[in-house]
Amino acid sequence: MKLHAAHLLLTIDLLGTFVFALEGGSAAAMNHLDLFGVLVLGFVTAVGGGIIRDLLIGAVPPASIRDWRYPAIALAGGFVAFVFFEQVQRVPPSLLMYLDAAGLSLFAIAGTTKALNFNMHPLVAALLGTITGTGGGTVRDVLLAHIPIILVADIYASAALAGSVVMLIALRLKMPPAWAAGLGGSVCFLLRVLSVWRNWSLPHIA
Amino acid sequence: MKLHAAHLLLTIDLLGTFVFALEGGSAAAMNHLDLFGVLVLGFVTAVGGGIIRDLLIGAVPPASIRDWRYPAIALAGGFVAFVFFEQVQRVPPSLLMYLDAAGLSLFAIAGTTKALNFNMHPLVAALLGTITGTGGGTVRDVLLAHIPIILVADIYASAALAGSVVMLIALRLKMPPAWAAGLGGSVCFLLRVLSVWRNWSLPHIA
Amino acid sequence: MKLHAAHLLLTIDLLGTFVFALEGGSAAAMNHLDLFGVLVLGFVTAVGGGIIRDLLIGAVPPASIRDWRYPAIALAGGFVAFVFFEQVQRVPPSLLMYLDAAGLSLFAIAGTTKALNFNMHPLVAALLGTITGTGGGTVRDVLLAHIPIILVADIYASAALAGSVVMLIALRLKMPPAWAAGLGGSVCFLLRVLSVWRNWSLPHIA
Repeated sequence: MKLHAAHLLLTIDLLGTFVFALEGGSAAAMNHLDLFGVLVLGFVTAVGGGIIRDLLIGAVPPASIRDWRYPAIALAGGFVAFVFFEQVQRVPPSLLMYLDAAGLSLFAIAGTTKALNFNMHPLVAALLGTITGTGGGTVRDVLLAHIPIILVADIYASAALAGSVVMLIALRLKMPPAWAAGLGGSVCFLLRVLSVWRNWSLPHIA
Repeated sequence: MKLHAAHLLLTIDLLGTFVFALEGGSAAAMNHLDLFGVLVLGFVTAVGGGIIRDLLIGAVPPASIRDWRYPAIALAGGFVAFVFFEQVQRVPPSLLMYLDAAGLSLFAIAGTTKALNFNMHPLVAALLGTITGTGGGTVRDVLLAHIPIILVADIYASAALAGSVVMLIALRLKMPPAWAAGLGGSVCFLLRVLSVWRNWSLPHIA
Repeated sequence: MKLHAAHLLLTIDLLGTFVFALEGGSAAAMNHLDLFGVLVLGFVTAVGGGIIRDLLIGAVPPASIRDWRYPAIALAGGFVAFVFFEQVQRVPPSLLMYLDAAGLSLFAIAGTTKALNFNMHPLVAALLGTITGTGGGTVRDVLLAHIPIILVADIYASAALAGSVVMLIALRLKMPPAWAAGLGGSVCFLLRVLSVWRNWSLPHIA
């Protein structure tokens, strides 16, 4: 039973890595980067957030370079984004958005959990969960010489933060860890999806 | 007596963190980032330099995420920059400049001291002190997709470097550590303030 | 005999550091950065790749700040780029290109070797070799608020990757380490030089 759950989690984690790499690679291809640049941006989008988290908590080498499957899947995602560029462009945006929201939720919850395991304060664990979910996209945008999109608009990083905080509160209220994680992840996913449907965004100075 | 000094230092350190976060958050708000982006830029401006230093010397998790008061103060500074945006804009620039110069001096001296405690070569300790004082602002400017202001103009990083070097020379001359730190910090502060008054800048290729 | 080889390697390594610093500093001077900015860009171009590699494999403090000769040489390279700006501009570009290709090859092979010594998977070691050779230039371009040149055009990072992979295959085929390193480095150097002569580049989405 436990084995099955671990298998399922690994599968979801690798799927999330692939989706993030596909998105990062597509953004690179649209910006006319060459094949190498597309692979790099796919890679950093997929594993950048987890690497920043692991460097900060002292878990080196980071999980995503210690286990060769993560870089392999991340590079494969970038490769698919390049070779099947036109087909990927024709994937319905809403499907990509759902997959991306699922990846965000998973990464945020996994990052918060790992930070707690490394004895971080809950406030810091919530920040590290958010960084896990959004750090890769931030590095991607920096490499494309843009202001990171998550800093400017949308309920995205804030959905990751809300999911992490909900999970931490549920744990404090003695909810079993798996349930707390499921609840936090659901909050992140729903908040993200609802915000796209309803066109919500955070306030900013005009 | 020693306790009082430690208290004083912590208070100054947290005040420096708050001022840097306020500045980073204001820059973000002026660039029309949303509330989340303002919090992020306040945070990285305030604690980014110390985090880079701690990663480089192997002091992980970095002090500023191990002690929850630093992120809390940094996020509070960003929040104030957002909510009281108009009031902060009306603070006299010269007051902000003095506070910023004080924060820069403190961070540079604290960074140099910590690097020495980790057995770094004095040349490296001076560089790490400079990084502690200026790294946060550098990351802020990178996230805003600007060339970091400290690389282009002004006596700013060079003031931090000069203060660190003076402190190291004073230590080499057997001055008591607290005096050496005070001397180095004063040199950094005065150099920074004088350079603003006199409009000094470093040479560059036309 | 062994001592001589170690001396030779150290000399080449420091020469590579100097060349990279000269290039980074020249790019900074051309972008009108001030003296401090020129020193910083020379420094990060020269030692940035090795620092990123060392942070990722957990070799902290990174070699290039543990041994004061690396920062000293890197800062000297930046200083020369500033003070002798016009003379450096008059160095034949092809000479600089050969020196740069040699530095790239050396850094890629050295990075791959170090990653293997830290028990990284060969796929990861090849990526880390590439990062060692190209990470500094990438950080330089980010600080100049450009899309990193290695992501957009040219056979550059891909030459480093090819050299690393060839070295790893040679090691797998039981070639003595020094020969495998020489072979991988030669492949990287020749691929880079040939690609400039023949104007080769990687495919990209139009």
